[in-house]
Amino acid sequence: MSMRIAFIGLGVMGYPMAGHLKKAGHTVCVYNRTTLKAERWVDRFGGMFVSTPAEAAVGADLVITCVGNDDDLRSVIEGPAGVLCGMQPGALLVDHTTASASITRELATLARVHEYDFLDAPVSGGQQGAENGTLTIMCGGRQESFERARPVLSCYAKAVQLMGDSGAGQLTKMVNQICVAGVVQGLAEGMAFAESAGLDPHQVINAVSQGAAGSWQMTHRHDTMIRGEYDHGFAVDWMRKDLDICLREAADNGCELPLTELVNEFYREIQRMGGGRWDTSSLLKRLQARRVRH
Amino acid sequence: MSMRIAFIGLGVMGYPMAGHLKKAGHTVCVYNRTTLKAERWVDRFGGMFVSTPAEAAVGADLVITCVGNDDDLRSVIEGPAGVLCGMQPGALLVDHTTASASITRELATLARVHEYDFLDAPVSGGQQGAENGTLTIMCGGRQESFERARPVLSCYAKAVQLMGDSGAGQLTKMVNQICVAGVVQGLAEGMAFAESAGLDPHQVINAVSQGAAGSWQMTHRHDTMIRGEYDHGFAVDWMRKDLDICLREAADNGCELPLTELVNEFYREIQRMGGGRWDTSSLLKRLQARRVRH
Repeated sequence: MSMRIAFIGLGVMGYPMAGHLKKAGHTVCVYNRTTLKAERWVDRFGGMFVSTPAEAAVGADLVITCVGNDDDLRSVIEGPAGVLCGMQPGALLVDHTTASASITRELATLARVHEYDFLDAPVSGGQQGAENGTLTIMCGGRQESFERARPVLSCYAKAVQLMGDSGAGQLTKMVNQICVAGVVQGLAEGMAFAESAGLDPHQVINAVSQGAAGSWQMTHRHDTMIRGEYDHGFAVDWMRKDLDICLREAADNGCELPLTELVNEFYREIQRMGGGRWDTSSLLKRLQARRVRH
Repeated sequence: MSMRIAFIGLGVMGYPMAGHLKKAGHTVCVYNRTTLKAERWVDRFGGMFVSTPAEAAVGADLVITCVGNDDDLRSVIEGPAGVLCGMQPGALLVDHTTASASITRELATLARVHEYDFLDAPVSGGQQGAENGTLTIMCGGRQESFERARPVLSCYAKAVQLMGDSGAGQLTKMVNQICVAGVVQGLAEGMAFAESAGLDPHQVINAVSQGAAGSWQMTHRHDTMIRGEYDHGFAVDWMRKDLDICLREAADNGCELPLTELVNEFYREIQRMGGGRWDTSSLLKRLQARRVRH
């Protein structure tokens, strides 16, 4: 069934995601802070663009947001000419931003007051997953809202799951990021150790990657790590934002995350090294820089 | 080609490994500190047992050691009635113990002096890998020694690789343990977070295990972690020994391993909790215990 969809935020993720919706036959109206990008999107996919989130939301059955952080989200939803000014009661708001649990609760409250549906729905799978339509989407909200959104989200996801009530999607994404932090720092230490011991890193990874030390990160990142290439993948700046959210939420729940704290600190150092845009696997580069100083 | 093999050490790993050699048609003579176990092995597989490592080594083409740690290794090789007293020049010594780089260098020196071949060959794959004959073996030594040992080691391994000169097998095993430490602590923090946030841990793992957070540990250990079962797998006491070796070697090479140090500290706490025999995934139990205190 074709729907009228407003898509807010055409970043590296949102741009191809909105494209998949248009290709699937939905009526898509896009908004992006930088208008040039919205124009380019319409040139490529058709559909239309508008100059405020409110205009995009008018008449839409479904409003999708995919922006950078809590502040951006507050601005496009609650700000002047934000989504709230245009959205009709009964419509559904789906947010793909990796955001804090607190803004998610705030948006859920607004949804109740303004009588629309809301689903927090952060994604994993990165830019490649967005382009190939193979993202994983972790949702929080009511079962009916989820059933309503599922067919649309499936246009760019290989897995769409309801994790629980409002906020559960964000919390699941946080678990993902915490696990990634441990895997990547362990891998970086293993590779730094191999290098310092004079081993051939390719041969080492080949020997250990099929067993108990194996991970997605080891399989997909060791090659670029060995070459010292970090101009791709998931940026340190984004990871810092996500880990800050994890640590705040964990503190609220009385849960200690000592490794996550440590790795967040290391990413802060990488930002100071000028590596805010580097891939998260650049934890190896930090260790190498420290070894040189010895 | 059938060989005369001495097998020293019938622990949870050595017992089934020596069995595979006998089943493959080799002439196997075993030694174990506890004689009862050697008797039981002979009852099951045939072959013969002797009461000292020296007797086992007499006339053997290949002597294989698989014991607990550096001290055990020194004792069965250099001690009174040790392997050195019986081993003939030109024979090959293969050591499967996960041991330090320093004792490996010591054994390599002895091998040169006494004119026998030596291969350090720690394994990964655990008890199950030893029983099913699907271990991974990481070897260090000369190419000729490796070629000599390979057909025999293949009786209980799915992968046998030469990693470099003497010690390179041990160093590769250390990389493996370092990576495991990061993966397991990250996973434990992720699962503790999920629990503290009220998520269904099974559903969360299902949502994140196919992507960037995925790992062997996540796939193979989450179920027992959720159930709080730790009476299986690779024991904390053994991991402590291995991580101590890693940290000493890294310090010698000017390589920092902050996460490995931290996790080693956590395992020390688990030992104090009485969990020396628990599986390494019990890092979750430590986090849960700390949360309860809040």
